[in-house]
Amino acid sequence: MSNGKTPGQSPAEKENLAQIQANEAKNFAQVQAEVWELGKRARQAAGRMALLPANLKNQILLAMAAALREREPQILTENQRDLRLARSKGIAPAMLDRLTLTAARIADMAAGLESLAALPDPIGQVIAGWRGARDIAIQKTRVPLGVVGLIYEARPNVTADAAGICLKTGNAVILRGSGDAQASNLAIVDALRQAIQKAGGPADAVLLLENPDRTAVAVMLRMNRYLDVLIPRGGAGLIQRVLNEATVPVIETGIGNCHIYVDETADLEMALEILLNAKTQRVSVCNAAESLLVHRAAAAAFLPLAEKALTEKGVELRACPVSRQYLTGAKAAAEEDFAAEFLDFILSVKVVDNLAEAIAHINHYGTGHSEAIVTRDYESAQAFTAGVDAAAVYVNASTRFTDGEQFGFGAEIGISTQKLHARGPLGLEEMTAVKYIIYGQGQVRG
Amino acid sequence: MSNGKTPGQSPAEKENLAQIQANEAKNFAQVQAEVWELGKRARQAAGRMALLPANLKNQILLAMAAALREREPQILTENQRDLRLARSKGIAPAMLDRLTLTAARIADMAAGLESLAALPDPIGQVIAGWRGARDIAIQKTRVPLGVVGLIYEARPNVTADAAGICLKTGNAVILRGSGDAQASNLAIVDALRQAIQKAGGPADAVLLLENPDRTAVAVMLRMNRYLDVLIPRGGAGLIQRVLNEATVPVIETGIGNCHIYVDETADLEMALEILLNAKTQRVSVCNAAESLLVHRAAAAAFLPLAEKALTEKGVELRACPVSRQYLTGAKAAAEEDFAAEFLDFILSVKVVDNLAEAIAHINHYGTGHSEAIVTRDYESAQAFTAGVDAAAVYVNASTRFTDGEQFGFGAEIGISTQKLHARGPLGLEEMTAVKYIIYGQGQVRG
Repeated sequence: MSNGKTPGQSPAEKENLAQIQANEAKNFAQVQAEVWELGKRARQAAGRMALLPANLKNQILLAMAAALREREPQILTENQRDLRLARSKGIAPAMLDRLTLTAARIADMAAGLESLAALPDPIGQVIAGWRGARDIAIQKTRVPLGVVGLIYEARPNVTADAAGICLKTGNAVILRGSGDAQASNLAIVDALRQAIQKAGGPADAVLLLENPDRTAVAVMLRMNRYLDVLIPRGGAGLIQRVLNEATVPVIETGIGNCHIYVDETADLEMALEILLNAKTQRVSVCNAAESLLVHRAAAAAFLPLAEKALTEKGVELRACPVSRQYLTGAKAAAEEDFAAEFLDFILSVKVVDNLAEAIAHINHYGTGHSEAIVTRDYESAQAFTAGVDAAAVYVNASTRFTDGEQFGFGAEIGISTQKLHARGPLGLEEMTAVKYIIYGQGQVRG
Repeated sequence: MSNGKTPGQSPAEKENLAQIQANEAKNFAQVQAEVWELGKRARQAAGRMALLPANLKNQILLAMAAALREREPQILTENQRDLRLARSKGIAPAMLDRLTLTAARIADMAAGLESLAALPDPIGQVIAGWRGARDIAIQKTRVPLGVVGLIYEARPNVTADAAGICLKTGNAVILRGSGDAQASNLAIVDALRQAIQKAGGPADAVLLLENPDRTAVAVMLRMNRYLDVLIPRGGAGLIQRVLNEATVPVIETGIGNCHIYVDETADLEMALEILLNAKTQRVSVCNAAESLLVHRAAAAAFLPLAEKALTEKGVELRACPVSRQYLTGAKAAAEEDFAAEFLDFILSVKVVDNLAEAIAHINHYGTGHSEAIVTRDYESAQAFTAGVDAAAVYVNASTRFTDGEQFGFGAEIGISTQKLHARGPLGLEEMTAVKYIIYGQGQVRG
């Protein structure tokens, strides 16, 4: 807050400040005009996309796949440019790995587009049909969402995957990739757009922000006129910013503080296998386990087993006082450890008195992503699946299955952790909206 | 923006200002604490509501209906208090009518709750079930949204309707009614809460903001922790404010700039009947027509007929230059008339060269609510329903049918004009979310 004074500011300094503010405003206006122009083009393309027959969309997808294979050398060259810059900035190895493209990864991207072409088209499905008042014939029909905005991390394979999913579902997409992957993304999008155009679709169905800076994102977040939905992918900070600032409807994705609850009656070998899989098979993903809850009656038998196996995998334990009685090397957990999505070889551990406490703990600290119980008790299984409020609730299986491919959706653009519109893996159906089409013979309302 | 100076401000004035700001901050903190407390109570109630069996929810609904009938005298007395205050403020007759309760209207509210009890319960429905990777058994199940926030106009009947719909769907609801209806709302909510409690449910499933001022609304709009969805009902200004400020996911409702397009081949008598119904049967509702489009080839025959019939009903026409050639008493339409939701005896009129121009005009000026074509041509009907981007698209029927009751939903909490989550009338199904429940036998991801 201003105190109404600017001590020691000279007239020259004031002029300077005014100049800077004027430049910023000018820059904002210019960026806004550029992003709005993309929005207009996307909106027009979406109008055409909504009317494309399924077989043409599938031909376009095959053409997109062919273009990626054909442009492999250029894409790899541009990816090398991104990688050099990223290395010079000292980016973490895990992030460098995600940024890296290889011939095999480009082949995977192409294969992904080809498999999309083979999936059934959700657009035009009549979900339900019935007669309403005065015998009007109502058809609830699946239609595209329109224009999708995707804000995502430095993973160039997502560029092709998301473009393919949006194209299959008759949407246009405005991609805002990470600046770290911009050269790779430009090369991929250029290949895809040329393929769409050649195959008879609107190239503007796939658009990439040329200048993916903070200002451009700020414009996107409030571009309701040209965007029907925004999907942010990436870290908690980005998603929180989008939720705070966006006026465009958002599908929140991918923050997972997932729990494995080992019930009193659990098969401990099964519990151990599920825990190891959920925690260590891939630590950097949103459906990995971050917290272990153990029923008091199972603690003495299970926790030493779990500590041995997890320690062998290099997992650090942060445990509550009761569980530390059964653990030899665990640190004391702080309150915030139970709320953390570590995405690392770290696990919080807590002993609970009963199932109700486990459910209450999960509903308090969880992020509504994926939660699992290991139990042999029928009632515990029923109570856990009914009482836990999350996108996916598992009995005797690993949380790692929350994934479009594992669910059998064929493709996925992210995992929704909100309740509105879509929850869990966002497959093709989740990228659609509905329209009521009503056929009459002159009916009016009485 | 501050210019860095506060000329003529005395130290006493400064102190005064600081005091006012401190008081405002204190007041905000206090209101926030009160609204958050409601949020906590609603969240707890939602946890219980989600587990209530259908028959108990139906018994509660019947008890709520009985309580309304029983408390009729008190509710009418409190409504008289609201009406006196509203009259003294000089509120418009149409708004006074909406605010007024009578014995008959209270009986309607009770009957509405009873008919909700008779409807099938959407909660617990398994929408789809299949086997995923490693043979995990996946069940996509319908669950409550959680806590619904409803911000609505001065219509006390909505209080009971919304409470009933949320209760039937296992949700808790925080109601923010208009200050003009606060006494009526308090009386209704008090009756409903007592009935819920007596029948064995959580009274906090239905909560009313006691102080429905701007500050309380500001807190609600950003209360993501305790609200799963916000539904604003009312004027365009309110809905715009909610969209701009809310971080809680919103379902946008009820702004309708609806068009009737009279095609070249239209049965003109049918077109006239549909136009009159859509424009004049009830002018103040969102599914009423606000704009007439006429194919150039039908203009000479249809416009004079339409003018005569509409003028008899007291409708003012605001027309484009071409249509004015066929009209005797129409004013010239301004650009903004084509974007207006008049909610009054006013209609904008435009002659279009062809169907494509009609579709483009509707997609540009429309609000995505309800749009109708009157035609005898098969291809025109197909092109219109495919090309117009709206919640409900009609062939040869009045736009006035876009309504939960007319669609056969049994109940409705509003009409969504957004594409995400729900589009068109918000019935019981639209007040639900999904949860994936996965049954395994120890499966882990490979």
